[in-house]
Parts: sequence; C-alpha cells; structure tokens
Amino acid sequence: MRRGKPSCHAAFGEAVALLAGDGLLTKAFEVIAQHSVLPAAQTVLAIQMLADAAGHCGMIGGQRLDLENERMQAPIERVEQTNRLKTGALIAAAVKLGCLAADADEQTMQLADVYAQNIGMAFQITDDILDCTSSEEVLGKPIGSDAQNDKTTYVSVYGIDRAWEIAAEKIELAKRSLDRMDCCRTSQDGTFLYDLAEFILSRKN
Amino acid sequence: MRRGKPSCHAAFGEAVALLAGDGLLTKAFEVIAQHSVLPAAQTVLAIQMLADAAGHCGMIGGQRLDLENERMQAPIERVEQTNRLKTGALIAAAVKLGCLAADADEQTMQLADVYAQNIGMAFQITDDILDCTSSEEVLGKPIGSDAQNDKTTYVSVYGIDRAWEIAAEKIELAKRSLDRMDCCRTSQDGTFLYDLAEFILSRKN
Repeated sequence: MRRGKPSCHAAFGEAVALLAGDGLLTKAFEVIAQHSVLPAAQTVLAIQMLADAAGHCGMIGGQRLDLENERMQAPIERVEQTNRLKTGALIAAAVKLGCLAADADEQTMQLADVYAQNIGMAFQITDDILDCTSSEEVLGKPIGSDAQNDKTTYVSVYGIDRAWEIAAEKIELAKRSLDRMDCCRTSQDGTFLYDLAEFILSRKN
Repeated sequence: MRRGKPSCHAAFGEAVALLAGDGLLTKAFEVIAQHSVLPAAQTVLAIQMLADAAGHCGMIGGQRLDLENERMQAPIERVEQTNRLKTGALIAAAVKLGCLAADADEQTMQLADVYAQNIGMAFQITDDILDCTSSEEVLGKPIGSDAQNDKTTYVSVYGIDRAWEIAAEKIELAKRSLDRMDCCRTSQDGTFLYDLAEFILSRKN
C-alpha cells in the first residue's frame, strides 16, 4: 500500500511495475531533451545533473546500500549516507535544476543544495518516526516494517524524541540556508520553500 | 543462463538485477551528456533519439507487448510489432546515433534505419529458430521456452524452413540498403556492416 492505494507491483504485477519504472526513468530524460527551453548547453548540463542524481552514484546507489543494510547492523553513518543518496540526491537535483533554469550563481546553487539535502534528511527521519508511531490508515502504507526487519534507523539509534529533535534541526538549517538567498527572502517562491520545509515536520502521511 | 553464465538476477538476486538495469539505463544518458564531443544541440538530439528508442514507445513498450503476448495467441503482425520495438528500436538507435555523430544527411539516416530494422527482425527470427533447433550448451541459454509457453513466433507460424527464408530475405534487404549508401560501398566500416548482417544468419549463439 502507498498513499492508501495498492502499490504498482501489487496492482499490476512485478513485471509491469518494473517496466513502468524503467519507462518513467527514461521519460524524464526524454522530457528534458525534447521540451527544455534552455540553451542546448544548459540542457545537456541539466541532463547530466539528473543522471548523476538518479544513477549509481545517486538514488540507485542509495537503493543498493539500502538493500545491503537489510542484511547487517548498519552503523548510523552508513544509514545517513544511504538516505543522502536514496532520498536526498533527487530532491537536490530538483532544486538545483530550478537554479540552473533560472541561471542562478554558484553560491545560490550551493545554498539550494544545502536546503535540499537537509529537507531530504528530515523527510527520511520523519518517515522513520511515522513508521513506528502512525497507523496504516493515516500513513497510507504498512507500518512497523523497520522494527520488524531489525533495521538501523534514526529511531532505533536515538529514540523517537531525539530523532524528532534532529529532524527539527535539519529543517532549521534548511530555512537558514533560504535566509541567505536574496531571491527567497523577497519573493513569493521563497515562501513556498519555507512552507515546504515546515510541512515535512507536520506531515501525517 | 545467458551466454553460458548465470543471468544477473540468478547470480545476484532480483532486487540487485533490477537496480543494475536502472543504473545502466541511466548511465547511457550520463555518458552522452558528459562525454559527447558533438555540439550541444546535436548532443540533445542524440539523447532524444536514445530516449525515444529505449522508452515506452520503443524497447520498453516492446517488452510490455511481449508480456501481454504470453497471455494470448498473438497474431503474427503483433509479434512483428513487438520485435520491431523490443529488438529493432535500440539497434536502429545505435546505427542512427552513428549517422548523427558523422553528420550524415537525411537519406543516409533513413537507409541506415532500414538496415537496422531488417537486421533486428532477422536477429529475432534466428533467435526463434535457435530456440527450437539448438542446445543449451551451444546457445548458452535455456531452449524450448517458446514452444513450452505456446508463444506465437515466426517458427510456430511459418515453420523452420520458411522462417529461415524470411530471415535471409531481411538480411538481403539490409545489405541492399547498405549498397545505396556511398559511405558503406567504399569504406572499411561498410565491410563491417555487411559482415554484421551476414553474421546474424550464421551465428550459433
């Protein structure tokens, strides 16, 4: 179950779900290559950034670490690295592709990266917390799987209260990063990014 | 078994094999975006061509048709369409990306496409033939799976002798297409393309 509905492989079978994943991954590159309104050199850079973030040194690499973690008592540093790749890399790519499209300077790009990495990590920590404090009805997906799999998480290492504090600290760091970006302090879009950061702490599913 | 070795999912498990597939698919786009020496506009076009050929209207679409064919008595036209997408699209992309890199004219690109589509179809037909005439030792992969799954193939529709003739006709068409390309008639690279076409009829695995 995901978001209260059967997940793709449950609804359509593993083979179709696998092809859907491959199809959507390919589609992302097709969309940029076909519809980008940036100059061609920037479009190539955008594709490079997305491929880096999605590929074996990004999300897919993180998924691979995640698989291995299931078979060991992973130290928390390894879990952090897994989350940074599995969850953070694509969020960071989304934010940085926006910077690229807006022709942002290098410093803005770096601040955006810090913002994205921190909301990514906070998202993963609250995911761990919700996995052991929510219900399947509210969360929309099965709960308790981490504890069942004896998986190292922020909750198993620090307990719920401290894990919560760490998530809040990450969100604070994310917002401080926005504070340092002129474009965020002064525009409507900046408000959205602050709200998005705070939503991660208040989300129920 | 593939090429006499355990296939990826047999050797490393389904989850790792799935990530390896996703990783390699992503890597293809990364390689073009990062290492292309073409002008940026041509690089974007190359990525577009590869995404089209690999995606839901190409190889992945073909795999999807192939899955559905297992559950029905597919007419031969549908099998042809499946092969065109599943096998032909990426072979055609490989050949056409070469044309793009060499700044070939539109007519050459079309002739190269005809070449690629025909060797792709011939490859698939000889695959069907080998599936029911070869042995696992020689072929390097399990045989007889088509008959076992009651799958519509060139062999099940036309019989081995006629299927063989059709494959040979496709190879002939492929070579006639090369004849019409100046660059192939006169260069060493042309020889390779003729040999590649003929190899498809003589291959044992």
